[in-house]
Amino acid sequence: MSTDAVVTTAAYEACPVTGVLRIIGDKWSPAVLRLLAERGHGFNELDRSIEGISRRMLTRTLRSLEESGYVLRTPYGPAPARVEYTLTARGRSLREQLRALGQWASVHDTGP
Amino acid sequence: MSTDAVVTTAAYEACPVTGVLRIIGDKWSPAVLRLLAERGHGFNELDRSIEGISRRMLTRTLRSLEESGYVLRTPYGPAPARVEYTLTARGRSLREQLRALGQWASVHDTGP
Repeated sequence: MSTDAVVTTAAYEACPVTGVLRIIGDKWSPAVLRLLAERGHGFNELDRSIEGISRRMLTRTLRSLEESGYVLRTPYGPAPARVEYTLTARGRSLREQLRALGQWASVHDTGP
Repeated sequence: MSTDAVVTTAAYEACPVTGVLRIIGDKWSPAVLRLLAERGHGFNELDRSIEGISRRMLTRTLRSLEESGYVLRTPYGPAPARVEYTLTARGRSLREQLRALGQWASVHDTGP
């Protein structure tokens, strides 16, 4: 381990931006955030709307977004209750950050 | 494959922000961008300055940042030439985006 590390693992892990980058750098979170920014969606709706995502990955992505406080999961209707996913205020605010990054990216032509 | 997909794989891959998110969502790129934003660094300097990164991952991260136009690799001095890595204008601009995201993240308390 380098003794004169400027960027230590501890500092890196504690940095607030690290948590955000994990979310937005994840393959499917941006797509889910984008759809939920339009309106609330049910699980199957999200599954149908995102090409290539498995139900397992959608479950994992939604749980991670929920745990990070970006998405709210609301059961509704008689049992077996249906569920709607919506963006929280923090989720909407993150979506704005993504939109700004998208504008920056289109100006700087950063296609993959 | 879902026929009524709103977020198709093709559209997702072509979206400029996807390319940027791949870079900044990658484990080590933000740390390299941060160090190079301060000043140019040699390979060994970067290796010593980032705790936990392997030389193989540093090589891969630098190559990806170079290919995306964020980092410039400049050989200098007599053979075997030494190399300095610096941020391009696009790299400095991306670094500003990361800084803005960091400010957003510290306000929204998004620790990992």
